[in-house]
Amino acid sequence: MLKVPDHQVAGHQAGDGKLGPLIDDSGKFYKPIQSDGRGSKEVAFYTSFSSNTNIPNHIRRFFPIFHGTKLIEASDGSGQQPHLVLQDIVSGHLNPSIMDIKIGSRTWHPQASEDYIQRCFKKDRETSSLALGFRISGLQIESKGSGFWKPDRKLIQKFTAEEVRLVLRQFVSSNSSADSGVDPDCTFVSTVYGGSGGILAQLLELKEWFEHQTILHFYSCSVLMVYEKESVVKEMSSGAEVKLVDFAHIVEGNGVIDHNFLGGLCSLINFISEILTCSDVHTAKASLQDPKNYCYTNCNTQN
Amino acid sequence: MLKVPDHQVAGHQAGDGKLGPLIDDSGKFYKPIQSDGRGSKEVAFYTSFSSNTNIPNHIRRFFPIFHGTKLIEASDGSGQQPHLVLQDIVSGHLNPSIMDIKIGSRTWHPQASEDYIQRCFKKDRETSSLALGFRISGLQIESKGSGFWKPDRKLIQKFTAEEVRLVLRQFVSSNSSADSGVDPDCTFVSTVYGGSGGILAQLLELKEWFEHQTILHFYSCSVLMVYEKESVVKEMSSGAEVKLVDFAHIVEGNGVIDHNFLGGLCSLINFISEILTCSDVHTAKASLQDPKNYCYTNCNTQN
Repeated sequence: MLKVPDHQVAGHQAGDGKLGPLIDDSGKFYKPIQSDGRGSKEVAFYTSFSSNTNIPNHIRRFFPIFHGTKLIEASDGSGQQPHLVLQDIVSGHLNPSIMDIKIGSRTWHPQASEDYIQRCFKKDRETSSLALGFRISGLQIESKGSGFWKPDRKLIQKFTAEEVRLVLRQFVSSNSSADSGVDPDCTFVSTVYGGSGGILAQLLELKEWFEHQTILHFYSCSVLMVYEKESVVKEMSSGAEVKLVDFAHIVEGNGVIDHNFLGGLCSLINFISEILTCSDVHTAKASLQDPKNYCYTNCNTQN
Repeated sequence: MLKVPDHQVAGHQAGDGKLGPLIDDSGKFYKPIQSDGRGSKEVAFYTSFSSNTNIPNHIRRFFPIFHGTKLIEASDGSGQQPHLVLQDIVSGHLNPSIMDIKIGSRTWHPQASEDYIQRCFKKDRETSSLALGFRISGLQIESKGSGFWKPDRKLIQKFTAEEVRLVLRQFVSSNSSADSGVDPDCTFVSTVYGGSGGILAQLLELKEWFEHQTILHFYSCSVLMVYEKESVVKEMSSGAEVKLVDFAHIVEGNGVIDHNFLGGLCSLINFISEILTCSDVHTAKASLQDPKNYCYTNCNTQN
């Protein structure tokens, strides 16, 4: 019944007797409740969040559905262990392309222990978090006929702005991502990133909420972007989804917005809207309409 | 000809043989060029900024006009020293109320020296910067008939969210600010913070630019809010102005938005729009129109 997920791109992974999440056939995702305090914090978050009436429904849909907790046989063979029971976000997909992006230039909150703060501070400086306001924690891109391209996690966390721009273009391209010599064709950019139901529109909806909400601060939380290339080809609709995941470091907002998450989210949004605007310019040759300097600058440095 | 400014609320101050800025009668502000590298960086910023054609004019007006550099007699009696010659932002005002707010939860940039980073990191944690995304560096509020209320700078830097909310309300009130027992009447809130030319509208214009501009990152830079109570009373117009000041720690954006400044700016904007929305609710009793939860929550905790 329970098995190791096929499409996990970040976080601890089960397999070879290691502790990690499991999935079942009914679309549920079982996440082990870690005993170091993080697990109980994430349970507390889901429990409180699911009954919080201040969260608007159009925002709630960005969060995995919470089905409580359950004792199940752990993936490391250590017997029955408590697990969070969540919606399996990719259960409807056969070959999903996925990107996990940890948002915020700072992954720690001021109330954390000094030891934890120093470790996070070091990692935020070593990875792209500090410079870009986010870091890519994991990704897989479907390569037609050749499975998935899953670059090394250690490398993608340290991507420069230029490398992030490239991989965000590869993410919506039909040609091979693994070959760094190939210029991404951005075939799916308008369907996946663009449009009223696309990823950019969803991120902008989240942003609008984060500009005002002072209920919760989301440290070390990720934006997951998921879509299926075959759906775009067959149905001209990507079913692209944005979800927030990983809530072990959520603290109360106490009347202040989450400026750390919001700043990082705006940075990601700017990367994606530049790609959309630049590809508009290139395909439609509408070079004199809406002449936003920031786009031209970036298009020009890219080409 | 040259004299010590009457209305400086933050930064090094001249007087008693100390080095600080000077002003003249023609509306110019002379800022000593510090020899530790900060001075030359600020000169480099103004020189490059004033000739940068990528800065839109509606954004340029938020920056003091730059008139070059000049050797003048320094305020500390050390003889002729190089000074930045800038627009004196408060020269048109008799009794300006002023607030200097250092924007960003982080005041250091990744390329700074380790020693500088550690000092800033410590101060950002000790003050409100880390929690709120900004800290108030200085302020003066005109008290009718009794000069100015100028609270201790060391205290205001560490203000909690609740204290910031209070002082932002005191800033637009006609009753005494110094008396902490008096509830601020927020007499000037709609004229100073609200309206198409008010402070909120100006901050939102800046925010829109920061959502896209990837040219410059503004570390340790302040938003200055200035207005004159008498103008509001006499002319029903505050002449409220927002200016950016202090550019000794500006670095190139390299294709990434300034998510640190943007996040802090959005946090300040949220404080001010909450005050506007709450005072609307209280004065117009329009409690069922535009029922935004975040306002009610905050109105309720305030009262």
